[in-house]
Amino acid sequence: MTAPTPDLPNLVADDSMLSRKFGRETANYFSGSPLNRVSFLRSDHAFLASAFSHPTASFLPMNNLSPAVKDASSLGYVTKAEIEPLTGAEPFKQTEEEWVKSFSSDVISPVILFLGLDEKKTTGFEFKDFKGAPYFAIDVTPKDSLSEKANSVIEAVKAKGLDFSKSARMMSLTAPEAAIYAQARSLLDWNARNPFCAGCGGRTLSVNSGHKRRCPPTDLAGVPEGNPPKERGDCPTRHSVSNLCFPRTDPTIIVAVVSADGTKMLLGRNKRFPPDWYSTLAGFLEPGESIEEAVRREVWEESGVTAGRVVLHSSQPWPYPANLMIGAIAQATPDGETIDLGNDPELEDAKWFTMEEVRDALTTGVSDLGGPAPSTYKEGGLRLPPQTAIANRLIDSVCGGYLAAVSKI
Amino acid sequence: MTAPTPDLPNLVADDSMLSRKFGRETANYFSGSPLNRVSFLRSDHAFLASAFSHPTASFLPMNNLSPAVKDASSLGYVTKAEIEPLTGAEPFKQTEEEWVKSFSSDVISPVILFLGLDEKKTTGFEFKDFKGAPYFAIDVTPKDSLSEKANSVIEAVKAKGLDFSKSARMMSLTAPEAAIYAQARSLLDWNARNPFCAGCGGRTLSVNSGHKRRCPPTDLAGVPEGNPPKERGDCPTRHSVSNLCFPRTDPTIIVAVVSADGTKMLLGRNKRFPPDWYSTLAGFLEPGESIEEAVRREVWEESGVTAGRVVLHSSQPWPYPANLMIGAIAQATPDGETIDLGNDPELEDAKWFTMEEVRDALTTGVSDLGGPAPSTYKEGGLRLPPQTAIANRLIDSVCGGYLAAVSKI
Repeated sequence: MTAPTPDLPNLVADDSMLSRKFGRETANYFSGSPLNRVSFLRSDHAFLASAFSHPTASFLPMNNLSPAVKDASSLGYVTKAEIEPLTGAEPFKQTEEEWVKSFSSDVISPVILFLGLDEKKTTGFEFKDFKGAPYFAIDVTPKDSLSEKANSVIEAVKAKGLDFSKSARMMSLTAPEAAIYAQARSLLDWNARNPFCAGCGGRTLSVNSGHKRRCPPTDLAGVPEGNPPKERGDCPTRHSVSNLCFPRTDPTIIVAVVSADGTKMLLGRNKRFPPDWYSTLAGFLEPGESIEEAVRREVWEESGVTAGRVVLHSSQPWPYPANLMIGAIAQATPDGETIDLGNDPELEDAKWFTMEEVRDALTTGVSDLGGPAPSTYKEGGLRLPPQTAIANRLIDSVCGGYLAAVSKI
Repeated sequence: MTAPTPDLPNLVADDSMLSRKFGRETANYFSGSPLNRVSFLRSDHAFLASAFSHPTASFLPMNNLSPAVKDASSLGYVTKAEIEPLTGAEPFKQTEEEWVKSFSSDVISPVILFLGLDEKKTTGFEFKDFKGAPYFAIDVTPKDSLSEKANSVIEAVKAKGLDFSKSARMMSLTAPEAAIYAQARSLLDWNARNPFCAGCGGRTLSVNSGHKRRCPPTDLAGVPEGNPPKERGDCPTRHSVSNLCFPRTDPTIIVAVVSADGTKMLLGRNKRFPPDWYSTLAGFLEPGESIEEAVRREVWEESGVTAGRVVLHSSQPWPYPANLMIGAIAQATPDGETIDLGNDPELEDAKWFTMEEVRDALTTGVSDLGGPAPSTYKEGGLRLPPQTAIANRLIDSVCGGYLAAVSKI
């Protein structure tokens, strides 16, 4: 199935000096969330309890990271009554400190992720100065002692005519839904991958409505009722401010490289791509590296090409599992254009394409990675990633005049 | 002590189209490493063994994350002979697979971090097509069973007339040394914080010359010699490609906000700052968020101001512990300039300054955070961060004509 062209938001269609100078902002797929995360309220259980119980609250169940969906373009939300068998009626009744004090490593609770408030829906929920419809995501994966309760929620979801998406990668949601899904998927995945503390190996507790994990100092597991909890072993994360227990996001560079004279574009392909399919180069940024350095390193390691000036273009959250794609445009140095795949054998091929070939491919060769080429495609021609990928947006920017005197970003 | 103005590299003083259009690249402090990381060679123990033993190899000892230094501007390197009591003479004799097979959770080895090759020093070390002087960092923190050996290396470092830096934050190194230190500090810190697997709670093993940690499937601890190792419990990181065992880098946005009419700049201060000291706003990016969205969220949460168009400017690795500062310039929307500190109570104050005030402060009020104001400073005037901070570079860019028709980035 070919994904519909996403409804990319134009959040900043303004006439500011920055827009006049640099052009309109590129809003990439998975960005453009309609929700205000009000991140500072995530530890306020009075707020959370009130949002959780409000009749306008929406709950997105996710089973093994697959979201409930109505159809290919819409997420499927349920009500508090439908997730209550798993979460209980009042999961935020205790404060976070009380949770930590009553921590027991043998009790597993489902992660309840507060996503934010949709402020355009002023339907009655208010807390202090903040208004809007609350959104939550709930991990309903049947796991260990939660299996039975989770399965009952899964049945309720299906009984409602919803289903859990079969796609490992959701790329056909409308842009606002895609952004909500990206936040939910990244954070539930992070919670699922980090049940233990990397500092001491002990079990951790999901707090901050799913946005942090804490390593509690005591444990009630195996302690007879009424007795004080056991002290746990020392843990470095308890000594100082440490971001170990914060969700991780992996910055990844992705870059359209143009030749020194601006007439060609460097694209690469790996073995998994269909024949004739090429894309921009990409790779993880490393600690102690700037984005610009990571761009030059990755381009050289993967293609042998030496990049000079690097300009940052735009960014895209990529929830598989929690990458931040940082899009750049770089220009090769005049004597650094020779392709050499012998450094890091990651690419099957890398090649310089003329701007004309690339421009042509943007109109005739764009499709989803798994999908068929469009009807306009001529066998043997260049194929490119879809508009939902920042790779496409970078290529399009360069072809659309990024290098020209007047910017059309 | 005031740090000397760093010797910021101009790696890309070229005349490319991107430079002509967007101006020269801003190379921030902690970037501009002279080393080629040749990251694809990190698991090649033949390469590592050869580099480790080469007479031109330099070893940076770090004790509890403090590097050995010659003076405030230079790191202190030692030779293989001086670190051998801790590392052994041939630490890369076995392959990585053999390490994993002979893993024993009760044996602790020092982290030996391969940093890269200085290709400008073509002094005889060669491996395949790669030439240059090899650089390593070694964790010499006296810890557990390694204490005695580590202390003997520490004594040798001191006997050589070097010392371990007393500064918690090194900000006075020359730019190339700062970049080497940033890489070493971020990665040794990550190894030290992650001795256990967050997926299963078991001890992990440093591999890839300090750039990855693995959760081995078996353990020789407590197994009598000659017997096969014990199987360890199941771990999710062993099932699929997972970046759990890769070093983490936390993307952080930092932004100079200009008013809708371009005449004022928004700066904020927290309680730890000296009186009259202000800086740009900053905060961690969250999973499922683009950089542009994180900028708008943080600006609104911390100051109440609504940002419209966001332009990405440059980036800076920040090794405390492993942040990636992503510098942006944003413009407030015309009706979103009212300051409100009531959302997230993180800032003590936020204020609009005229460009004239800011421009004046760039010449009279810039100093290190802990240092005295310069002699040109007049009491009560605005004080700003030093040139080693990306905050200063962002402010300087805006004042230097970033908003004007012709870019002077």
